[in-house]
Amino acid sequence: MKTYTECIPCFLGQALQASRFASDDPSVHERVLREVARAVSTMDMSRTPPEMGQLIHRVIREETGIDDPYAAVKRQFNDLVLELYPDLKERVSSADDPFEVAVRLAIAGNIIDFGGGRSADAADVERSIEESLREPLSGGGLELLRSAVDKSSDILYIADNAGEIVFDRILIEELSPEKITLVVRGRPVLNDVTVEDARAVGLLDMVDVLPNGSDAPGTILDDCSEAVRTRFAKADLVIAKGQGNFETLSGAARPVFFLLRVKCEVLARETGYELGSVVVAKI
Amino acid sequence: MKTYTECIPCFLGQALQASRFASDDPSVHERVLREVARAVSTMDMSRTPPEMGQLIHRVIREETGIDDPYAAVKRQFNDLVLELYPDLKERVSSADDPFEVAVRLAIAGNIIDFGGGRSADAADVERSIEESLREPLSGGGLELLRSAVDKSSDILYIADNAGEIVFDRILIEELSPEKITLVVRGRPVLNDVTVEDARAVGLLDMVDVLPNGSDAPGTILDDCSEAVRTRFAKADLVIAKGQGNFETLSGAARPVFFLLRVKCEVLARETGYELGSVVVAKI
Repeated sequence: MKTYTECIPCFLGQALQASRFASDDPSVHERVLREVARAVSTMDMSRTPPEMGQLIHRVIREETGIDDPYAAVKRQFNDLVLELYPDLKERVSSADDPFEVAVRLAIAGNIIDFGGGRSADAADVERSIEESLREPLSGGGLELLRSAVDKSSDILYIADNAGEIVFDRILIEELSPEKITLVVRGRPVLNDVTVEDARAVGLLDMVDVLPNGSDAPGTILDDCSEAVRTRFAKADLVIAKGQGNFETLSGAARPVFFLLRVKCEVLARETGYELGSVVVAKI
Repeated sequence: MKTYTECIPCFLGQALQASRFASDDPSVHERVLREVARAVSTMDMSRTPPEMGQLIHRVIREETGIDDPYAAVKRQFNDLVLELYPDLKERVSSADDPFEVAVRLAIAGNIIDFGGGRSADAADVERSIEESLREPLSGGGLELLRSAVDKSSDILYIADNAGEIVFDRILIEELSPEKITLVVRGRPVLNDVTVEDARAVGLLDMVDVLPNGSDAPGTILDDCSEAVRTRFAKADLVIAKGQGNFETLSGAARPVFFLLRVKCEVLARETGYELGSVVVAKI
């Protein structure tokens, strides 16, 4: 997906938010915002929004020396959702259709997104759980996904955010962990999942975890390791969570199942699903 | 007031909104946003936010050839509030303290503000009327203003936005129009008041109207006409409406009464009044 002009104020909002996570010094915030503004003034709008996100977070690391400004917020949301885990598992096991409930919960978790200057709190998570269980699914992909899962022995599951990853664990447990390779970011960027988060929520002992070798808040295949590119091409089934992965993989050469909530107007227009939609789509 | 880093995403939001008001062509929006991003990357943060606003709207005029992108929205809000005028006058005349109600209504109208990428609709106006009549006044300036009005024969009233100007008319009628010179922007910028709006809402026959000679969405004295600078220095009393005038005049060499609603976190921090506050402050 290309970058739209509406993304530009959000890039600056993201730069502001991330620079504040990394530093209390207004002169640092100012340097980061100037640098990002300069990059925006000449950026190639045909590239995906996570490519600018990648640049923003590189600027922040360079200007602050802080490698992982979102470390605390990632721990906070991993812990928060781990507390909800027993109740969420009970909702799945007691459901008429545990697969559908697990898919809906995995999408619910996608509200924990600090991209584009967004944020989330515990009340947002609770609300997203109820909405995602109640709202009609958009995208028409649920039954296609169910049948693809049944037929696949090699599933690539591309994770998105910390906290959200606990919801993903619940879906992964329904899909059978032995079939799954979990792809995480190669290094910290935004509140995106790294190997550390997979470990923190108990996924490292459950599935193969593959860091993608990239520091982008999405999956820019050209920037990923050869291993990830090969697995992406050859897997029986690819499931990708969230907006950053959608923006970078929606034009990929193979079908991907996207599971996400629609959190901005640009994505709503691009996908054709309303703001707030709970989406399972094969693209 | 200086520019804060938080203002920067809003500058880009304002550039996006204004370029959309001026043109349906995404390539125009893109050129405007790139130009504004370039300006932001080297801007002097010690200058006031309306100086960047002035530049943004100059870029839009140059890129689109449209002199007044907000012409329709200004008419719309002038007409909307003119419809409310009889009811608002009745609220003033039936009040125990007509002066206080007129001041509160003038502040209520300050919600009609398209700066910083904000917008407003009829429901916002209704809500602002009720809030502004009900909430405690911040700033401690009401009685000081009442007494200053009584002692002044030469009042400079610096207007802010179209639509809002109808609320200002109600206050001006309470203050005695013959004492008042109404300062308006020198040419169209954002949804700010020009001579055309003063005419549209019946103020041109009621008070002296003085265009300030500037195209900034605020009152940058150095950019205003000699006449405005002189009147500003010599008037018995200066009343300035809204955020753009506050940002440009809060450091002025003479006392000014600011009437405004606090609509952003930066202004809340700068003034010490909470978001949403209804403010009458002598500074």
